[in-house]
Amino acid sequence: MHSDLRNESKVEPISIWPRMTVNDLVTEMGKSGAFMAGMLSKAVDTYEQMIRDNAYVFLSLSGALIPAGMSRVLIELVNRKLVDCIVTTGANMVHDVMMAYGGTFFKGSPLLRDDRLLEKRIDRIYDVLVSEDEFVSKFDEPLLELYDEISIARKGEVLSISELINEIAQRIPDKPESLLKTCYRKGVKIFVPTIHDSVFGLQAAIFNRKNPGRLTVDVFKDLQDIWTIRENAAKSGAIILGGGVPKNFVFQSFYFGDKMLDYVVQITLDRPETGGLSGAPPDEAVSWGKIRPDARMVVVVGEVTMVLPIIASALIERLEK
Amino acid sequence: MHSDLRNESKVEPISIWPRMTVNDLVTEMGKSGAFMAGMLSKAVDTYEQMIRDNAYVFLSLSGALIPAGMSRVLIELVNRKLVDCIVTTGANMVHDVMMAYGGTFFKGSPLLRDDRLLEKRIDRIYDVLVSEDEFVSKFDEPLLELYDEISIARKGEVLSISELINEIAQRIPDKPESLLKTCYRKGVKIFVPTIHDSVFGLQAAIFNRKNPGRLTVDVFKDLQDIWTIRENAAKSGAIILGGGVPKNFVFQSFYFGDKMLDYVVQITLDRPETGGLSGAPPDEAVSWGKIRPDARMVVVVGEVTMVLPIIASALIERLEK
Amino acid sequence: MHSDLRNESKVEPISIWPRMTVNDLVTEMGKSGAFMAGMLSKAVDTYEQMIRDNAYVFLSLSGALIPAGMSRVLIELVNRKLVDCIVTTGANMVHDVMMAYGGTFFKGSPLLRDDRLLEKRIDRIYDVLVSEDEFVSKFDEPLLELYDEISIARKGEVLSISELINEIAQRIPDKPESLLKTCYRKGVKIFVPTIHDSVFGLQAAIFNRKNPGRLTVDVFKDLQDIWTIRENAAKSGAIILGGGVPKNFVFQSFYFGDKMLDYVVQITLDRPETGGLSGAPPDEAVSWGKIRPDARMVVVVGEVTMVLPIIASALIERLEK
Amino acid sequence: MHSDLRNESKVEPISIWPRMTVNDLVTEMGKSGAFMAGMLSKAVDTYEQMIRDNAYVFLSLSGALIPAGMSRVLIELVNRKLVDCIVTTGANMVHDVMMAYGGTFFKGSPLLRDDRLLEKRIDRIYDVLVSEDEFVSKFDEPLLELYDEISIARKGEVLSISELINEIAQRIPDKPESLLKTCYRKGVKIFVPTIHDSVFGLQAAIFNRKNPGRLTVDVFKDLQDIWTIRENAAKSGAIILGGGVPKNFVFQSFYFGDKMLDYVVQITLDRPETGGLSGAPPDEAVSWGKIRPDARMVVVVGEVTMVLPIIASALIERLEK
Repeated sequence: MHSDLRNESKVEPISIWPRMTVNDLVTEMGKSGAFMAGMLSKAVDTYEQMIRDNAYVFLSLSGALIPAGMSRVLIELVNRKLVDCIVTTGANMVHDVMMAYGGTFFKGSPLLRDDRLLEKRIDRIYDVLVSEDEFVSKFDEPLLELYDEISIARKGEVLSISELINEIAQRIPDKPESLLKTCYRKGVKIFVPTIHDSVFGLQAAIFNRKNPGRLTVDVFKDLQDIWTIRENAAKSGAIILGGGVPKNFVFQSFYFGDKMLDYVVQITLDRPETGGLSGAPPDEAVSWGKIRPDARMVVVVGEVTMVLPIIASALIERLEK
Repeated sequence: MHSDLRNESKVEPISIWPRMTVNDLVTEMGKSGAFMAGMLSKAVDTYEQMIRDNAYVFLSLSGALIPAGMSRVLIELVNRKLVDCIVTTGANMVHDVMMAYGGTFFKGSPLLRDDRLLEKRIDRIYDVLVSEDEFVSKFDEPLLELYDEISIARKGEVLSISELINEIAQRIPDKPESLLKTCYRKGVKIFVPTIHDSVFGLQAAIFNRKNPGRLTVDVFKDLQDIWTIRENAAKSGAIILGGGVPKNFVFQSFYFGDKMLDYVVQITLDRPETGGLSGAPPDEAVSWGKIRPDARMVVVVGEVTMVLPIIASALIERLEK
Repeated sequence: MHSDLRNESKVEPISIWPRMTVNDLVTEMGKSGAFMAGMLSKAVDTYEQMIRDNAYVFLSLSGALIPAGMSRVLIELVNRKLVDCIVTTGANMVHDVMMAYGGTFFKGSPLLRDDRLLEKRIDRIYDVLVSEDEFVSKFDEPLLELYDEISIARKGEVLSISELINEIAQRIPDKPESLLKTCYRKGVKIFVPTIHDSVFGLQAAIFNRKNPGRLTVDVFKDLQDIWTIRENAAKSGAIILGGGVPKNFVFQSFYFGDKMLDYVVQITLDRPETGGLSGAPPDEAVSWGKIRPDARMVVVVGEVTMVLPIIASALIERLEK
Repeated sequence: MHSDLRNESKVEPISIWPRMTVNDLVTEMGKSGAFMAGMLSKAVDTYEQMIRDNAYVFLSLSGALIPAGMSRVLIELVNRKLVDCIVTTGANMVHDVMMAYGGTFFKGSPLLRDDRLLEKRIDRIYDVLVSEDEFVSKFDEPLLELYDEISIARKGEVLSISELINEIAQRIPDKPESLLKTCYRKGVKIFVPTIHDSVFGLQAAIFNRKNPGRLTVDVFKDLQDIWTIRENAAKSGAIILGGGVPKNFVFQSFYFGDKMLDYVVQITLDRPETGGLSGAPPDEAVSWGKIRPDARMVVVVGEVTMVLPIIASALIERLEK
């Protein structure tokens, strides 16, 4: 055998069999260790290691994961204490709150044309549909009432975004299928740095137009909180689902100071060649001092709704052993 | 000839010749009309039409366009009144302000390793490098002074993000190579909805830690302003560079109400299959009532630093004729 | 509920649980039906339907699936009669024959530099390594002997590529881990239209240089065979792994004549926007009369080594029920 | 200034101006040197260097470049002696021959559905349309006559694929807009390793069914020719448009022996993460000894019809100076 290869591991062909568990398959993929099958397997290994090392786990969510049916997977992770803090786009929380009020998403047919959907007051998110009327009755209207209640309860205070989200979480119906409510009950911190870039923001602006000065939410306050979290964690890991602000918000909280991320698992279809953060490999963040040079870093190039449930179900199987 | 094809345009092979102008080439690509050459040509046609129709032009910026050397191209568009409003990530403005204070970006070699860069206090953005020390002296320190001045000048006020940016723009050195300063002088509105997801935010948090309550910036206030802009525009168009919050922030400002975007040009390498907004084709936004069903919509699948200068130089050539 | 949505299916959140089987997960993904999780589930449904309808199943392979450890997954499909015909790049068969002679692939470290590998005579395939010396002793040398034997056995004949591959298959060691040998034993036809674009071709050219005229392989002959297959099949389906010639070779065999593909499952990361066939959605092939307009067509945007084992293990679980 | 950055080049912002030439813009992009603007500029520099160093230039074509209107750009390169050898898919030559016989491609509307196109006998290639009837009268029928003539002229001979293509090139109408005819007149060698994976192949199979044994084309013969080319070239470069077999066929011709490619420019949207050759960066080929470790290698991530005309027009401007 080639002397330089003697110390490398062999690629072993993956076996499959009927009724193999998801973790069986992921473990097989680890034998191969190659290409994205190998990366998927390493992603589970790395997440498992975060948990076994009692690392504080940040989870960043971008993309329309709730409409795509990912809420229970995320809730399972929260309920099993496999996530300590979530950073998400506003849209995911909009959709989650809407579901807490009984809202529904539908599978769209590729034959539906967007101009027809407009006439019918149906909104499209890739291949998922949602009725505008339901949006009004199961999100917009209840939310305006919540804003009213919250503006009374926290009168005169300048809230942080996460305080506002927490106030909302407290008041929405107690449905087990709501990620926000689950996080509220389990004490998992939720940051929504782009709350204004969602219907939460549009409704807040409408509320404030009618009720000037009653709801003041400071854009910078949350940074103090995330720094405190960082400082208190002995070890930290990040599960990055997609890119965007949620990814950067987690990473940048490690920019100043000595603490760095010890583990990063990133699932994305974005490319590095744009130079944007979404597709940037974690290595780049090493130069910035956000991730340790010796951190465990894995990038799975794949679509999140396909990859996340595999990682999550393999992980919970491993942790029950 | 096939009767159903008689009314379709023929694909004509593209010609090239020495010393052809960028617009000559783009016009040739229009003869072909096919694949991304055709889309690039349509992008210029659509942008030109926006201008000739006196449409209000939103420009959204994501990705590290300033470090990649795009500032003058953007400034040229602003100086020629081809852009009315910019929505950008915080990072682009961080880098722009840093350049206004004399900061420099360097071309990186692919052989530099991130762990070495960390030791040397050099940060990497894809293949561009920036020194941490310069970051401190040419961004962090001046910014903290600006925050101090602004907190005195606007004492007791709750600012919107764009008001804060405007106060910063007013105070930075008057360098022609600063996009922010150029926009300030030309009266081009800048929205930075994710200002907190950048070093602006980190420094603001540091400032607020030392000076509690002196700098309060409301996260929702800007939505009123962008709605006013939308309402006052007879026709509106959007040039979308990359995706992310800047794209959504423009689109969502057309969500409620009757006004919709009349033109959209989107340049991106992101894929639609993630279901996220960044890679979503404009058609999806038609279902939401953000873009007119009969709008001119063009998607150029390509990297922005390569595509934008072509579009911009072809456009300014056409408009000088 | 919105009248137009009443007939659409609801998106149901996916559940996960410890020790769920791969098929359990894929079935859950079907409840959601959205994004790539939904497509993955539809891919298994479609493959299952092909089998239950006794369709003739073409499998096209591109990319380095054998070095990546996919041989046993493919062999499992062949042994269970879930594939009737394989169209592959030459490289996959090169690697398979090399493994039949005892060759090994190794997991590479991302720190290894290609110039060092060149010095050490180690070849890299993405993150997999193979020794040049093993290539010589476990592929090149045995193959030249096989060519010699075959040129004697089929003296004076003009072979088709698949006849040559069949002669090779007959003579390589009878290892259960060889896909080629398994196909030979099971009577699964293998087409390798780009045999010359691989080390099979380079060695054949070397052989022919020394032995002019002893090995003549006609490039067009296989088309007759694949047409005969097409004509004899009541129903046909295609599992397309990656793109390239293997995909087109299957599709184009349905170009003339009345038969069309009834089912297509395509797994790829290639984009449609290049206009090339690799990333083209199956719909395009409908216009050409290669796929029925009412065919079941699924595209899973994902990397093959990650997606294929999931589909295969879910499928064999379903078929054992 | 940071001591480690003193020797690096500064990123300079790109300038644009009205009536700037394509080469002006590409040269500006070189000042920035960053992201894909930088790569595009390096691609032109590298191609220019190949020419100034009298390197033998291989050009590989995949994707439907002829229907997309790229023929004149390619012809310009051939006429100016900027290409010495072309390796292409069969489809590009099919489309080129069809155009030589007066065939036409049309711009498609995105609203046309593939099932309707099937009924109307119109074939779709991404957003380009072609009539089946024209395909018959301007390709299939003339080609069958050519095959008949060639089979008589070269009676009893076993041809290489490039010999067959050359016989075809000789006989098609002498139209300046045919790339194949131009190459024939200019003595530029054309390899079409996947001729059978195109309508050339389907028609050859039809011809051979009716005329058994009259047209024998050996699949391996061309490898001798490409090796001879390699051996005779002092320096060699490759312009790789897309991936697929054309790319590999060029690269693998440098696999055995001491000669390696000195320059590689690759334009593609394919990703490396599939492990397939199409998206693999040139570095991987260094480990195989196909490209010199010190070769100039550039990858432009972009769609070919948009990038190629820019490179070609900048190049011819530079070479006229």
